[in-house]
Amino acid sequence: MPLLLFLFLATTLTISHGSEHTNIPNQIHPLRPQSGARGSNVAGLSCLSWRFGVETNNIIDWNTVPKECGDYVGHYMLGGQYRNDSRVVANEAILYAESLSLGKDGKDIWIFDTDETALSNVPYYAENGFGLTPYNSTLFNAWVLKGKAPALPETLNLYKKLMKLGIKVVFLTGRPDSQRDATAKNLKKAGYKTWEKLILRKSSESGKAAVEYKSGHRKKLEESGYRIVGNIGDQWSDLIGTNPGKRTFKLPDPMYYIG
Amino acid sequence: MPLLLFLFLATTLTISHGSEHTNIPNQIHPLRPQSGARGSNVAGLSCLSWRFGVETNNIIDWNTVPKECGDYVGHYMLGGQYRNDSRVVANEAILYAESLSLGKDGKDIWIFDTDETALSNVPYYAENGFGLTPYNSTLFNAWVLKGKAPALPETLNLYKKLMKLGIKVVFLTGRPDSQRDATAKNLKKAGYKTWEKLILRKSSESGKAAVEYKSGHRKKLEESGYRIVGNIGDQWSDLIGTNPGKRTFKLPDPMYYIG
Repeated sequence: MPLLLFLFLATTLTISHGSEHTNIPNQIHPLRPQSGARGSNVAGLSCLSWRFGVETNNIIDWNTVPKECGDYVGHYMLGGQYRNDSRVVANEAILYAESLSLGKDGKDIWIFDTDETALSNVPYYAENGFGLTPYNSTLFNAWVLKGKAPALPETLNLYKKLMKLGIKVVFLTGRPDSQRDATAKNLKKAGYKTWEKLILRKSSESGKAAVEYKSGHRKKLEESGYRIVGNIGDQWSDLIGTNPGKRTFKLPDPMYYIG
Repeated sequence: MPLLLFLFLATTLTISHGSEHTNIPNQIHPLRPQSGARGSNVAGLSCLSWRFGVETNNIIDWNTVPKECGDYVGHYMLGGQYRNDSRVVANEAILYAESLSLGKDGKDIWIFDTDETALSNVPYYAENGFGLTPYNSTLFNAWVLKGKAPALPETLNLYKKLMKLGIKVVFLTGRPDSQRDATAKNLKKAGYKTWEKLILRKSSESGKAAVEYKSGHRKKLEESGYRIVGNIGDQWSDLIGTNPGKRTFKLPDPMYYIG
């Protein structure tokens, strides 16, 4: 199990530094030391900044995780922080959903992206470099057709809460329509038992940028009488453009970028 | 490897249910490591997630930094990570600016926010709790009128680069117009020697939300023939709304929220 060993070593390595830059300092001095918690040469710090840049949509149009951040991203995705970050987002979404005054006509909907939002492809990316290597459609499509992606548990919690509140869910994914059956089965297996709509990319839409494709469908939904009260995704292209929804929620994803 | 992942996902699934409605999980599942990368009792981890939530605009309308994150935010602001994060943003902005094809009419402008963007109030916040206590207009205005805020060095680097490229700078700040002289002097002293416009909030605009106020002025600028090629600020309210600019850049700020 070379990957297991790799992850163990990467994790161990990062812990020793991680405990430095996550511990609370007991002294603050205007002159900044060049090593340790406040130094700039601690492993992981620049990757933390890279992740900040990515998650805030400052760094865009990137193809692969920087080579020096491969270990960092793998550690982040499997090490707990990814789940902690996802939990903060889902909790905010739940608090917001609970605060809503809903219509009685059943037209309140919440848009869910699929990959790295409703479903987690971490098992795939754990065996395929966590975004270090370029997107491989053959391998990824084979994984999708297996229909074995687990739910991102924090998103599933949000989904269940919305169901209880009477907010309907629309899955809007960039996956091609040829993957409809596999996606529907996977969603159900992962715990998403029902939905108002499951929208996938038709072959006629294959050339559209994600923002354009998703904005267009959200516009159609609103024109047909739905109110998009919430919208959650891991990519900014899920959340910007026209008709974004009353409020949007950005889940973490340092593994890949979709513009 | 699949077994390891299964165990990981199954374990974390159980944990997430135990901490469904709290940002900071205080119930730790027996199977969860009690320290290290996956332990929730590592100082700073939950505050790292809180900061993720804030910087991605998931956590909004907050008044003060959570009590348990006060030390964390102070450490972040003075410890180097803030500057590293700012550098990533400024570097992306510079790369983008260098890639632009500019007009020959001198109408390309870049919008700069002032507080925590062009100027840093870290010396003030270091003595006033780093956002742990509510905004105190008396104390903060007294600090502003001193005109002693240093530049955020990464923003100043961007400013200098834009000047060389021939892109004009417009400062658009939520500070009241009564602070115009102090702000102008402070900007010059900090290294921002010249600008196309310095826009402050007139008393007639005091009731406007930041997004509305800033969007309105950007709209006016574009209507008068300027092209906003870039826009940088520490608050999402600097960057969203209408006429945001061709591309926006979000600097870090975990100390306060302006909606």
